[in-house]
This record gives sequence, C-alpha cells and structure tokens, in this order.
Amino acid sequence: MEVRARAPGKIILAGEHAVVHGSTAVAAAIDLYTYVSLRFPTPTDNDNQLRLHLKDVGLELSWPVGKLKEALPKLNSLSASAPSSCSLETFKAITSLVDEQNIPETNSSLASGVSAFLWLYTSIHGDKAAKVVVTSELPLGSGLGSSAAFCVALSGALLALSESGKLDFTDQGWQIFSDSDLELVNKWAFEGEKIIHGKPSGIDNTVSTYGNMIKFRSGQLTRIKTNMPLKMLITNTKVGRNTKALVASVSERTLRHSSAMASVFNAVDAISNELAAIIQSPASDDLAVTEKEEKLGELMEMNQGLLLCMGVSHLSIDTVIRVALKYKLSTKLTGAGGGGCVLTLLPTLLSGTVVDKVIAELESCGFQCMIAGIGGRGMEVSYSY
Amino acid sequence: MEVRARAPGKIILAGEHAVVHGSTAVAAAIDLYTYVSLRFPTPTDNDNQLRLHLKDVGLELSWPVGKLKEALPKLNSLSASAPSSCSLETFKAITSLVDEQNIPETNSSLASGVSAFLWLYTSIHGDKAAKVVVTSELPLGSGLGSSAAFCVALSGALLALSESGKLDFTDQGWQIFSDSDLELVNKWAFEGEKIIHGKPSGIDNTVSTYGNMIKFRSGQLTRIKTNMPLKMLITNTKVGRNTKALVASVSERTLRHSSAMASVFNAVDAISNELAAIIQSPASDDLAVTEKEEKLGELMEMNQGLLLCMGVSHLSIDTVIRVALKYKLSTKLTGAGGGGCVLTLLPTLLSGTVVDKVIAELESCGFQCMIAGIGGRGMEVSYSY
Repeated sequence: MEVRARAPGKIILAGEHAVVHGSTAVAAAIDLYTYVSLRFPTPTDNDNQLRLHLKDVGLELSWPVGKLKEALPKLNSLSASAPSSCSLETFKAITSLVDEQNIPETNSSLASGVSAFLWLYTSIHGDKAAKVVVTSELPLGSGLGSSAAFCVALSGALLALSESGKLDFTDQGWQIFSDSDLELVNKWAFEGEKIIHGKPSGIDNTVSTYGNMIKFRSGQLTRIKTNMPLKMLITNTKVGRNTKALVASVSERTLRHSSAMASVFNAVDAISNELAAIIQSPASDDLAVTEKEEKLGELMEMNQGLLLCMGVSHLSIDTVIRVALKYKLSTKLTGAGGGGCVLTLLPTLLSGTVVDKVIAELESCGFQCMIAGIGGRGMEVSYSY
Repeated sequence: MEVRARAPGKIILAGEHAVVHGSTAVAAAIDLYTYVSLRFPTPTDNDNQLRLHLKDVGLELSWPVGKLKEALPKLNSLSASAPSSCSLETFKAITSLVDEQNIPETNSSLASGVSAFLWLYTSIHGDKAAKVVVTSELPLGSGLGSSAAFCVALSGALLALSESGKLDFTDQGWQIFSDSDLELVNKWAFEGEKIIHGKPSGIDNTVSTYGNMIKFRSGQLTRIKTNMPLKMLITNTKVGRNTKALVASVSERTLRHSSAMASVFNAVDAISNELAAIIQSPASDDLAVTEKEEKLGELMEMNQGLLLCMGVSHLSIDTVIRVALKYKLSTKLTGAGGGGCVLTLLPTLLSGTVVDKVIAELESCGFQCMIAGIGGRGMEVSYSY
C-alpha cells in the first residue's frame, strides 16, 4: 500500500516585516503542493532500509534500519500522538546519520530538511523500513513555505497510518483529516520546522496544514475563511536573499527613524486588516468581485510602497512591478524581499492572452512564473494499492 | 539705468501631497534663478511702449502706454507699498490686453504669466514705458516654482525702484532687501501667483523671496535655516502631469483606505520633521556631514515609498530611481509626481566622474538634468548703467 499526502505552500499577502514590529500580517495557502509518498516493503522485498528519494533535487538516500536503531536507541519511548521536540542528543545523532550521506554542500537547508525527515519519520513511525518519495511544485528556499509543506505532508502521511481508521481506505481521492488530527499534524510539522529553521514562526506550517488563510499578530494566529476566488501570478526572481539580514536592516531603520517607522507599521497593520476584511466579506455578484479585486490590488500597491519605505525591495522586484504595470496589474513582494518571490494579482476577468504576455515577458527577464489559486485546501491524504 | 532682480526656484524636499492632509512639508530654494531686467527709455528713445521680452520662449510683446492708461484707468489709485488683489474688472481688462497679443495657444500658463506681469507692473510702477527682459534657468511648469520666481523677481525689480534709497546704487553686485521690504515683495508676488494659479499655497513665492527653507503645515509657514551644504541632481522627466487630478486621486484613496492613509500621512509628517531637524542641526566635522547625508538619503527613499503608497509615482520617476540606485544614490519625486521632476541627493564626497555618468545615463533616457545647491539665497537685486 502507498500512502500519499500533499500539503500546500504559502504566500504572505500583506504585513511581512511589519509583523516583527507588532503589525498584523495575512498569509494564505496556494494550490502548489509538496507531495510525500510512503510505501512499505513487502516481506518478499527483503529491503531493510529507510529510503528517501527527493525527486526534484535528484537525491536518493538510504539508512539501514539497524543503523537507525543503533543511533537512536530512545525511539520507541516516543509517541506519535504526543509531539515532542528533538533533544540536542538526538539532534546530534541525526546530524551524523545525515552527514554520512553524500548531500551536496552547496545546499545546507537540504541537509537540515533531511534531518527533519529523520526526526519526524522515526518519532512518528519508529524504525521501520520504508520508501519515501518527495516531489514538489514549490521552488526551494524562495519564501513559498516549501520546508513547511514538506514537514506537513510528511507528518500527514505518517499520521495517516495511525489515524487511518477514521479515513476511507477504499477511496483513492484526496481526503481531509479531522481538525484534531490536523492539530497533531501541525504540531509535528512545527517540530520539523524547528530543526530546519531554528525558530520558525509557526505560520508556514499552520497555513500548510489547514489551508485557507491566517491573520497573525504578536504570535497570535487566527484562521480566516476566504469568500472569494483569488488568483496570483507568483514570480520567482531567483535572487537569493538573506532573510535575517533584511529583518535586521528594518530594525536598524526603525531605531534610526522610530517615529516615521511606527506610523509605517501602523499603516501596514491597517492594510492587513482591510485586506482580510475584504477577503472574508460575503460573496456577491460579479461586479462586487471586480470591486474587491480593485481594492485588493490597491492595498497590495500600498503595501509595496511601505515595504520600499522599509528598504526591503530590490531591483529585480521593481522589474516585475514595471512589467506588470504595463498591463495595469498590481504587484508586491511577498516574504522577506530583497529578491525572492513577487505577487501579481490576476483579476477574474483578465484575459488569458494578457496573462500569457506578462508571463512571457517576465520569463524573458530570467524569472520563473507560477499561477496559483489563493486560500485553498490544506493537507490531504490519499491511499493506493 | 538697468535694474536686475533674480529669484530662485524651489523644490519640495519632503511632504508633498501629505501636506494637503495635514502633514508637515519642507520646501527649499535652489540656486537656479529667474532673472528680470528693467530698463527705462531715455527721453531721446521716444519709445512710449511697455515691452516684455520672454527670452526663453522667444516671445516679444508690447503695449502702448496710452492703451494701458485707457484699459486700466484706476491704476493710479494703487500703492506699491500696499499689495492688493486684482479685481475681477481689472483682470478682465488685463486679459483682453493679453489676448490681443499673439501668444501661442499651446501654452495657457504663458498667457496667465503675462497677465500677472501686467498686473504687477502696472500696480507697482504705474503706466510708464519700460523694457522688461526675462530669462530663466528654471524649466517652465515642471514644479520647480518658475512662475513664483518670475513674480518674485519682477516684484523685486519694480520695488527696488521705490525702495532703492536703502540699497547701494553704486554697487553692481547682488544686494539683499531688508526683511520688511522682502515681505512686501513676497506679498506682491503672491498676488501675481493668484493670477497664474488661482489658489496658490504661498509656499513657492515665500521660498523664492527669502531663500533657504521653509516648513509648512496646515497653512502655517515657518522659515528655517540650513546648517549644511546640500546638493541635488534635479531630473526633469518632461512627463506632463495634472496636479489637480493627482491631488484628487490621493484624496480618493484616502477615502477608500482612511486608516492606512492616516498612518501614511503621519509617517510623512515624521519624515519632514526629522529631515528639517537634520538640516538645521549645528554644522560639525566632515564625518558628521556624511552621516547627515546618509540619513537624508534614507528619509528621501522612505518618503518616495510613501508617495508610491499614495499612488502618485510614475514609470519615468521609477526609471530615474533605478539609474541612481546603480550608483547607490537616493532619489524621490518632488512636487506633484506622476512625472515632473525628481531629486537625487549628491553627497559631498561623491566624485564628479560618478555624477557625470549618472547624468549621461539619465540624459540618454531623454531626461533633462540640472545640478542645484539647496537652501540658498532668496531674491536679490543689482543695478548697472
């Protein structure tokens, strides 16, 4: 039997950076997923290995089950239903299991992702042999929450086995966990995120687990329900950025210009709340959708101006804005800025021809374009034989 | 004898648009001038005409003095020392004196400038023959206060004749009026500006008259003294803009997003006040100047982000920003936005080679570049024989 789980990536619709200074931010799931497939060897396979195949990066890793037992002797004291943090001792043991593999050094987050895998797999499922295949529609490390989607899908697939009594094994379509089971997935995924990011906000895994959108402020997350279809063109500028340095630069600017920056953060807070209110307001006729989209586009443009004011934009982001502006489309950076990904609102009534033109022009600049529905489904699982 | 007066143009350093909504703005004189020369015919000239030569636009106009007397019979009841507003009756009479001339219809502000000229000339100096020559270093109608500089220089030259007892006729250098005489110049210039703009703010003529800088908020103008040299590259994008429409668009956005926009205006207010404080702070060593310039550059960048947030930027402005950014120079629009002029801070220690490169690149985009010292002298007069 194969268990498959998928979990969506996320975007920040409004409030990045300002959220660090107390403003509200809004994050949303996108319909681009990371897929994790679990397959267990039959007795005739005689394969006593835990195998991990990261298809997108072309990496195949394996650990003999005996080696896992030896390296992680405390495994069987753990419980799948009680998520716990990885101890320093276990982390060191896992790190040496990862270091033995030939992971390209150019990608350190890849190694930490494999560590998270080992921790989640062995904690939830113990030291059993399996073949795990991971594929993703999300570019890695570009701020679209690829690591959280991986942790959520992996936790979901693993927990589906213990929770599977509540799901329909005979249905091969995507099925949704109960809220309490999703809570468990979310907690485990957060533990995985801690291994990858050190001190994650919990936003990415929460959005990936539950889908839809969340508002967050001062560490408080509130799930909200969208009441309108929303589509974005996500442009990956492929310009690498240092999130920590960008966050620090905003803090430094805030120290230098405290009064102005306090007002800037207030403005962002108002934008996030207005944006969330528009998205949550009851569905109405087509005209109302167009009006809502116009307001959302304006709010995105305003947020982008405020991000420029914080000093976290970038020439590559500006290039995307210029191209989109030719077609009167609203654009803002999403996430850390300084490169990374950029959102362009695609109104419902926009013709496909225009979208194709915009994408062609952006791709000719060397950018990667993806179209994503916003605020959709969270983690789901399916079974096949 | 020839009386010459010159009056500077202005830039808005911070706070444009937001000032309409109660924020502080800062305007400064630039060392680009409009020059007005007055020359009176000797008895042997036998020229009984009032002649106006606008050199930059290649326009030569003249009115027989008899015609002025006839059209404006109430002239002699006016007093140069008591500035008064142009009555509707007089305005109509002046308009028909202007309409008789062959002024190209493509430039309606030129005609209103000529009306202002006739009002100021005849009100201050009566119906005497003279030859008035106007030249300017300021591009017309680009937001650099060319009309105010014209009104100020003209009023200054005309008042120099009545006030000349206090100035040194034998000195052929530029001389400054007393504060009370400047007040008179400023009031007359404001009356001229009313003929050109309908409802001017009084900022342009005040900066042009007194030089230096002013802070203004809710109609209150405060003159401030700069304590540091400051140089800007002024780039005229030559993109025409509709100031009234831009002001209205900000007001509409404010109605749609009142809470966010209120914070945006507060942020601008803080930026204007901080900028003014830096410029006024006591002069210190070179390092301090560099630090001040860095802060000013950052404040300009922040203000530009907020102007983007108000929706008054433009692709042409963005192009200037991109070019300047290559050389790590800070840029913001000045005035109404939507095209018009753009400021780029030129730090004291910036090499001339870099400045030349930036200018060459901007000019290759079709823009006009001017280098200007900021916060300099106001209206001055000189005599020659």
